Amino acid sequence: MGLHPNFPIPGITFIDFLPLLRVPGDFEMLITHFMNHIYNVTLPAAGVSKIDIVVGLDARGFLLGPPLAQRLNAGFVPVRKANKLPGDCHKVTYTLEYGEDAFEIQKDSIKEGQTVLIVDDLIATGGSASAAGKLVKMAGGKTVEYLFVVGLPFLNGDKKLDAPAYWVVAGED
Amino acid sequence: MGLHPNFPIPGITFIDFLPLLRVPGDFEMLITHFMNHIYNVTLPAAGVSKIDIVVGLDARGFLLGPPLAQRLNAGFVPVRKANKLPGDCHKVTYTLEYGEDAFEIQKDSIKEGQTVLIVDDLIATGGSASAAGKLVKMAGGKTVEYLFVVGLPFLNGDKKLDAPAYWVVAGED
Repeated sequence: MGLHPNFPIPGITFIDFLPLLRVPGDFEMLITHFMNHIYNVTLPAAGVSKIDIVVGLDARGFLLGPPLAQRLNAGFVPVRKANKLPGDCHKVTYTLEYGEDAFEIQKDSIKEGQTVLIVDDLIATGGSASAAGKLVKMAGGKTVEYLFVVGLPFLNGDKKLDAPAYWVVAGED
Repeated sequence: MGLHPNFPIPGITFIDFLPLLRVPGDFEMLITHFMNHIYNVTLPAAGVSKIDIVVGLDARGFLLGPPLAQRLNAGFVPVRKANKLPGDCHKVTYTLEYGEDAFEIQKDSIKEGQTVLIVDDLIATGGSASAAGKLVKMAGGKTVEYLFVVGLPFLNGDKKLDAPAYWVVAGED
Protein backbone atom coordinates (compact mmCIF):
# COMPACT_ATOMS: atom_id res chain seq x y z
CA MET A 1 0.00 0.00 0.00
CA GLY A 2 1.15 3.53 -0.71
CA LEU A 3 1.43 6.34 1.84
CA HIS A 4 0.87 9.85 0.48
CA PRO A 5 1.54 12.68 2.99
CA ASN A 6 -0.56 15.85 2.62
CA PHE A 7 -3.17 14.32 0.29
CA PRO A 8 -5.93 15.25 -0.37
CA ILE A 9 -5.22 18.23 1.96
CA PRO A 10 -2.26 19.30 4.15
CA GLY A 11 -2.02 17.36 7.40
CA ILE A 12 -3.68 14.21 6.09
CA THR A 13 -1.64 11.17 5.04
CA PHE A 14 -3.57 9.17 2.44
CA ILE A 15 -3.24 5.38 2.68
CA ASP A 16 -3.66 4.06 -0.87
CA PHE A 17 -4.71 0.42 -1.28
CA LEU A 18 -5.07 0.67 -5.08
CA PRO A 19 -1.59 -0.76 -5.87
CA LEU A 20 -2.72 -4.00 -4.22
CA LEU A 21 -5.44 -4.41 -6.89
CA ARG A 22 -2.86 -4.29 -9.68
CA VAL A 23 -1.52 -7.71 -8.64
CA PRO A 24 -4.23 -10.36 -9.17
CA GLY A 25 -2.91 -12.72 -6.50
CA ASP A 26 -2.74 -9.96 -3.90
CA PHE A 27 -6.31 -8.84 -4.64
CA GLU A 28 -7.48 -12.47 -4.52
CA MET A 29 -5.75 -12.94 -1.16
CA LEU A 30 -7.48 -9.85 0.25
CA ILE A 31 -10.91 -11.11 -0.82
CA THR A 32 -10.14 -14.60 0.51
CA HIS A 33 -9.01 -13.06 3.82
CA PHE A 34 -12.36 -11.27 4.08
CA MET A 35 -14.22 -14.47 3.19
CA ASN A 36 -12.44 -16.45 5.91
CA HIS A 37 -13.28 -13.71 8.40
CA ILE A 38 -16.94 -13.61 7.33
CA TYR A 39 -17.45 -17.37 7.64
CA ASN A 40 -15.40 -17.85 10.81
CA VAL A 41 -16.24 -14.68 12.74
CA THR A 42 -18.95 -12.48 11.23
CA LEU A 43 -21.73 -15.01 10.65
CA PRO A 44 -21.30 -16.96 13.93
CA ALA A 45 -21.01 -13.72 15.97
CA ALA A 46 -24.16 -12.29 14.39
CA GLY A 47 -26.02 -15.60 14.66
CA VAL A 48 -27.03 -15.53 11.00
CA SER A 49 -26.39 -18.12 8.30
CA LYS A 50 -26.02 -15.83 5.30
CA ILE A 51 -25.22 -12.32 4.11
CA ASP A 52 -28.04 -11.18 1.80
CA ILE A 53 -26.60 -7.86 0.62
CA VAL A 54 -23.13 -6.33 0.45
CA VAL A 55 -23.22 -2.52 0.52
CA GLY A 56 -20.19 -0.70 -0.90
CA LEU A 57 -19.39 2.98 -0.32
CA ASP A 58 -18.81 5.42 -3.20
CA ALA A 59 -16.28 5.07 -4.71
CA ARG A 60 -13.46 2.85 -3.39
CA GLY A 61 -15.92 0.55 -1.63
CA PHE A 62 -17.25 -0.22 -5.12
CA LEU A 63 -13.96 -2.00 -5.82
CA LEU A 64 -14.39 -4.43 -2.92
CA GLY A 65 -18.14 -4.95 -2.63
CA PRO A 66 -18.94 -6.76 -5.89
CA PRO A 67 -16.18 -9.41 -5.61
CA LEU A 68 -17.30 -10.11 -2.02
CA ALA A 69 -20.98 -10.18 -2.98
CA GLN A 70 -20.31 -12.68 -5.76
CA ARG A 71 -18.34 -15.00 -3.47
CA LEU A 72 -21.11 -14.79 -0.86
CA ASN A 73 -23.90 -15.30 -3.40
CA ALA A 74 -25.23 -12.00 -2.09
CA GLY A 75 -26.62 -8.97 -3.89
CA PHE A 76 -24.61 -5.78 -4.21
CA VAL A 77 -26.05 -2.34 -3.38
CA PRO A 78 -24.14 0.96 -3.65
CA VAL A 79 -24.29 3.88 -1.25
CA ARG A 80 -23.50 6.95 -3.35
CA LYS A 81 -22.75 10.64 -2.97
CA ALA A 82 -25.94 12.74 -3.15
CA ASN A 83 -27.63 13.24 -6.55
CA LYS A 84 -25.78 10.37 -8.24
CA LEU A 85 -28.45 7.68 -7.85
CA PRO A 86 -31.63 7.73 -9.95
CA GLY A 87 -35.04 6.90 -8.45
CA ASP A 88 -36.39 7.34 -4.92
CA CYS A 89 -33.57 7.49 -2.37
CA HIS A 90 -32.99 7.79 1.35
CA LYS A 91 -30.45 10.51 2.24
CA VAL A 92 -28.11 11.10 5.21
CA THR A 93 -25.63 13.96 5.73
CA TYR A 94 -22.35 13.23 7.50
CA THR A 95 -19.08 14.84 8.57
CA LEU A 96 -15.77 13.69 7.08
CA GLU A 97 -12.28 13.96 8.60
CA TYR A 98 -11.95 16.88 6.16
CA GLY A 99 -15.34 18.32 5.15
CA GLU A 100 -19.04 17.39 4.94
CA ASP A 101 -20.99 15.30 2.48
CA ALA A 102 -24.28 13.46 1.91
CA PHE A 103 -24.90 9.83 0.99
CA GLU A 104 -27.93 8.17 -0.62
CA ILE A 105 -29.28 4.66 -1.10
CA GLN A 106 -32.06 3.57 -3.48
CA LYS A 107 -35.21 2.93 -1.42
CA ASP A 108 -36.07 -0.37 -3.13
CA SER A 109 -32.52 -1.76 -3.00
CA ILE A 110 -32.82 -3.74 0.26
CA LYS A 111 -35.72 -5.91 1.42
CA GLU A 112 -37.03 -5.67 5.00
CA GLY A 113 -34.88 -7.76 7.33
CA GLN A 114 -32.10 -8.62 4.88
CA THR A 115 -28.66 -9.10 6.43
CA VAL A 116 -26.09 -6.58 5.24
CA LEU A 117 -22.30 -6.23 5.22
CA ILE A 118 -21.00 -2.68 4.69
CA VAL A 119 -17.62 -2.42 2.93
CA ASP A 120 -15.13 0.39 2.32
CA ASP A 121 -11.38 0.67 1.89
CA LEU A 122 -10.70 2.64 5.09
CA ILE A 123 -12.35 3.74 8.32
CA ALA A 124 -11.13 7.05 9.74
CA THR A 125 -13.55 9.00 11.96
CA GLY A 126 -16.37 6.67 10.91
CA GLY A 127 -18.60 9.42 9.52
CA SER A 128 -19.21 7.87 6.12
CA ALA A 129 -19.57 4.31 7.44
CA SER A 130 -22.01 5.48 10.09
CA ALA A 131 -24.06 7.33 7.45
CA ALA A 132 -24.12 4.15 5.33
CA GLY A 133 -25.33 2.20 8.37
CA LYS A 134 -28.18 4.69 8.87
CA LEU A 135 -29.16 4.37 5.22
CA VAL A 136 -29.20 0.56 5.42
CA LYS A 137 -31.46 0.81 8.46
CA MET A 138 -33.78 3.30 6.69
CA ALA A 139 -33.99 0.87 3.76
CA GLY A 140 -34.99 -1.98 6.10
CA GLY A 141 -31.71 -3.90 6.29
CA LYS A 142 -29.87 -5.28 9.31
CA THR A 143 -26.15 -4.49 9.28
CA VAL A 144 -24.17 -7.38 10.73
CA GLU A 145 -20.65 -5.97 10.25
CA TYR A 146 -18.53 -3.19 8.75
CA LEU A 147 -15.47 -4.38 6.79
CA PHE A 148 -12.41 -2.30 5.88
CA VAL A 149 -8.96 -2.92 4.45
CA VAL A 150 -7.42 -0.25 6.71
CA GLY A 151 -8.49 0.89 10.17
CA LEU A 152 -7.30 3.94 12.09
CA PRO A 153 -8.31 2.79 15.57
CA PHE A 154 -6.87 5.87 17.34
CA LEU A 155 -9.71 7.90 15.74
CA ASN A 156 -12.34 5.63 17.38
CA GLY A 157 -14.48 5.63 14.24
CA ASP A 158 -15.85 2.19 15.06
CA LYS A 159 -17.47 3.59 18.23
CA LYS A 160 -19.96 5.44 15.97
CA LEU A 161 -21.20 2.22 14.35
CA ASP A 162 -24.25 0.06 15.15
CA ALA A 163 -22.44 -3.24 14.47
CA PRO A 164 -18.89 -4.62 14.87
CA ALA A 165 -16.12 -3.30 12.61
CA TYR A 166 -13.21 -5.30 11.19
CA TRP A 167 -10.09 -4.13 9.33
CA VAL A 168 -7.20 -6.12 7.90
CA VAL A 169 -4.42 -3.68 8.84
CA ALA A 170 -4.30 -0.79 11.31
CA GLY A 171 -2.68 2.57 10.57
CA GLU A 172 -0.81 4.49 13.30
CA ASP A 173 -1.30 8.04 14.58
CA MET B 1 -32.61 -2.30 -15.65
CA GLY B 2 -34.36 0.91 -14.67
CA LEU B 3 -35.18 3.83 -16.96
CA HIS B 4 -35.26 7.25 -15.30
CA PRO B 5 -36.44 10.13 -17.53
CA ASN B 6 -34.96 13.58 -16.86
CA PHE B 7 -32.09 12.34 -14.66
CA PRO B 8 -29.54 13.71 -13.88
CA ILE B 9 -30.79 16.69 -15.95
CA PRO B 10 -33.93 17.40 -18.04
CA GLY B 11 -33.84 15.75 -21.46
CA ILE B 12 -31.60 12.85 -20.43
CA THR B 13 -33.04 9.41 -19.69
CA PHE B 14 -30.77 7.56 -17.27
CA ILE B 15 -30.40 3.81 -17.85
CA ASP B 16 -29.73 2.28 -14.42
CA PHE B 17 -28.03 -1.14 -14.33
CA LEU B 18 -27.71 -1.17 -10.53
CA PRO B 19 -30.86 -3.25 -9.90
CA LEU B 20 -29.17 -6.08 -11.81
CA LEU B 21 -26.41 -6.23 -9.18
CA ARG B 22 -28.96 -6.83 -6.41
CA VAL B 23 -29.64 -10.33 -7.75
CA PRO B 24 -26.49 -12.48 -7.43
CA GLY B 25 -27.39 -14.80 -10.32
CA ASP B 26 -28.07 -11.89 -12.67
CA PHE B 27 -24.76 -10.22 -11.79
CA GLU B 28 -22.96 -13.54 -12.23
CA MET B 29 -24.58 -14.03 -15.62
CA LEU B 30 -23.47 -10.56 -16.75
CA ILE B 31 -19.86 -11.26 -15.77
CA THR B 32 -19.99 -14.70 -17.42
CA HIS B 33 -21.41 -13.11 -20.58
CA PHE B 34 -18.44 -10.72 -20.66
CA MET B 35 -16.02 -13.60 -20.03
CA ASN B 36 -17.42 -15.61 -22.94
CA HIS B 37 -17.12 -12.56 -25.17
CA ILE B 38 -13.54 -11.89 -24.06
CA TYR B 39 -12.34 -15.46 -24.69
CA ASN B 40 -14.30 -16.03 -27.91
CA VAL B 41 -14.06 -12.61 -29.56
CA THR B 42 -11.79 -10.08 -27.83
CA LEU B 43 -8.60 -12.10 -27.46
CA PRO B 44 -8.70 -13.81 -30.90
CA ALA B 45 -9.58 -10.51 -32.64
CA ALA B 46 -6.73 -8.68 -30.91
CA GLY B 47 -4.31 -11.55 -31.45
CA VAL B 48 -3.29 -11.61 -27.79
CA SER B 49 -3.41 -14.51 -25.34
CA LYS B 50 -4.19 -12.60 -22.16
CA ILE B 51 -5.61 -9.41 -20.67
CA ASP B 52 -3.02 -7.98 -18.26
CA ILE B 53 -5.02 -5.09 -16.80
CA VAL B 54 -8.73 -4.24 -16.51
CA VAL B 55 -9.33 -0.49 -16.24
CA GLY B 56 -12.62 0.62 -14.68
CA LEU B 57 -14.08 4.13 -14.94
CA ASP B 58 -15.06 6.17 -11.89
CA ALA B 59 -17.49 5.22 -10.39
CA ARG B 60 -19.86 2.64 -11.96
CA GLY B 61 -17.03 1.00 -13.90
CA PHE B 62 -15.57 0.17 -10.47
CA LEU B 63 -18.48 -2.24 -9.96
CA LEU B 64 -17.64 -4.28 -13.06
CA GLY B 65 -13.86 -4.08 -13.37
CA PRO B 66 -12.70 -5.98 -10.28
CA PRO B 67 -14.94 -9.07 -10.82
CA LEU B 68 -13.75 -9.23 -14.45
CA ALA B 69 -10.11 -8.71 -13.45
CA GLN B 70 -10.30 -11.52 -10.91
CA ARG B 71 -11.82 -13.97 -13.41
CA LEU B 72 -9.16 -13.02 -15.98
CA ASN B 73 -6.30 -13.24 -13.46
CA ALA B 74 -5.59 -9.64 -14.47
CA GLY B 75 -4.77 -6.57 -12.39
CA PHE B 76 -7.33 -3.84 -11.81
CA VAL B 77 -6.55 -0.15 -12.31
CA PRO B 78 -9.03 2.71 -11.76
CA VAL B 79 -9.43 5.81 -13.91
CA ARG B 80 -10.74 8.49 -11.54
CA LYS B 81 -12.15 11.98 -11.60
CA ALA B 82 -9.38 14.60 -11.20
CA ASN B 83 -7.80 15.10 -7.75
CA LYS B 84 -9.08 11.82 -6.36
CA LEU B 85 -5.96 9.70 -6.96
CA PRO B 86 -2.83 10.15 -4.84
CA GLY B 87 0.67 10.09 -6.36
CA ASP B 88 1.88 11.08 -9.83
CA CYS B 89 -0.95 10.93 -12.38
CA HIS B 90 -1.59 11.45 -16.07
CA LYS B 91 -4.60 13.73 -16.73
CA VAL B 92 -7.02 14.13 -19.67
CA THR B 93 -9.98 16.53 -19.96
CA TYR B 94 -13.10 15.35 -21.80
CA THR B 95 -16.62 16.45 -22.75
CA LEU B 96 -19.65 14.59 -21.41
CA GLU B 97 -23.14 14.37 -22.90
CA TYR B 98 -23.96 16.96 -20.24
CA GLY B 99 -20.89 18.90 -19.07
CA GLU B 100 -17.09 18.63 -18.91
CA ASP B 101 -14.77 16.70 -16.62
CA ALA B 102 -11.20 15.46 -16.20
CA PHE B 103 -9.91 11.93 -15.60
CA GLU B 104 -6.62 10.73 -14.13
CA ILE B 105 -4.65 7.48 -13.93
CA GLN B 106 -1.71 6.72 -11.64
CA LYS B 107 1.49 6.84 -13.73
CA ASP B 108 2.94 3.64 -12.31
CA SER B 109 -0.29 1.61 -12.58
CA ILE B 110 0.35 0.03 -16.01
CA LYS B 111 3.59 -1.46 -17.33
CA GLU B 112 4.81 -0.67 -20.87
CA GLY B 113 3.06 -2.91 -23.40
CA GLN B 114 0.48 -4.46 -21.05
CA THR B 115 -2.82 -5.42 -22.67
CA VAL B 116 -5.81 -3.52 -21.28
CA LEU B 117 -9.60 -3.87 -21.26
CA ILE B 118 -11.52 -0.67 -20.43
CA VAL B 119 -14.87 -1.18 -18.68
CA ASP B 120 -17.82 1.06 -17.86
CA ASP B 121 -21.56 0.60 -17.42
CA LEU B 122 -22.60 2.69 -20.44
CA ILE B 123 -21.19 4.37 -23.54
CA ALA B 124 -23.03 7.52 -24.66
CA THR B 125 -21.01 10.05 -26.69
CA GLY B 126 -17.80 8.17 -25.82
CA GLY B 127 -16.10 11.15 -24.17
CA SER B 128 -15.19 9.44 -20.93
CA ALA B 129 -14.20 6.13 -22.56
CA SER B 130 -12.05 7.96 -25.09
CA ALA B 131 -10.34 9.90 -22.27
CA ALA B 132 -9.68 6.63 -20.45
CA GLY B 133 -8.16 5.20 -23.62
CA LYS B 134 -5.83 8.19 -23.88
CA LEU B 135 -4.76 7.75 -20.26
CA VAL B 136 -4.05 4.03 -20.81
CA LYS B 137 -1.87 4.95 -23.80
CA MET B 138 -0.03 7.65 -21.79
CA ALA B 139 0.62 5.07 -19.08
CA GLY B 140 2.12 2.66 -21.65
CA GLY B 141 -0.77 0.21 -22.02
CA LYS B 142 -2.33 -1.21 -25.19
CA THR B 143 -6.16 -1.11 -25.11
CA VAL B 144 -7.59 -4.18 -26.85
CA GLU B 145 -11.30 -3.46 -26.26
CA TYR B 146 -13.88 -1.26 -24.54
CA LEU B 147 -16.66 -3.15 -22.70
CA PHE B 148 -20.04 -1.76 -21.64
CA VAL B 149 -23.30 -3.10 -20.31
CA VAL B 150 -25.32 -0.58 -22.32
CA GLY B 151 -24.49 1.03 -25.66
CA LEU B 152 -26.25 3.98 -27.31
CA PRO B 153 -25.08 3.32 -30.88
CA PHE B 154 -27.06 6.23 -32.37
CA LEU B 155 -24.62 8.59 -30.58
CA ASN B 156 -21.64 7.01 -32.39
CA GLY B 157 -19.50 7.11 -29.24
CA ASP B 158 -17.54 4.06 -30.37
CA LYS B 159 -16.23 6.00 -33.38
CA LYS B 160 -14.12 8.07 -30.95
CA LEU B 161 -12.29 5.00 -29.60
CA ASP B 162 -8.91 3.53 -30.58
CA ALA B 163 -10.07 -0.10 -30.21
CA PRO B 164 -13.31 -2.05 -30.77
CA ALA B 165 -16.25 -1.48 -28.42
CA TYR B 166 -18.75 -4.06 -27.18
CA TRP B 167 -22.02 -3.67 -25.28
CA VAL B 168 -24.49 -6.26 -24.05
CA VAL B 169 -27.67 -4.30 -24.78
CA ALA B 170 -28.34 -1.27 -26.97
CA GLY B 171 -30.53 1.68 -25.96
CA GLU B 172 -32.74 3.45 -28.50
CA ASP B 173 -32.94 7.13 -29.49
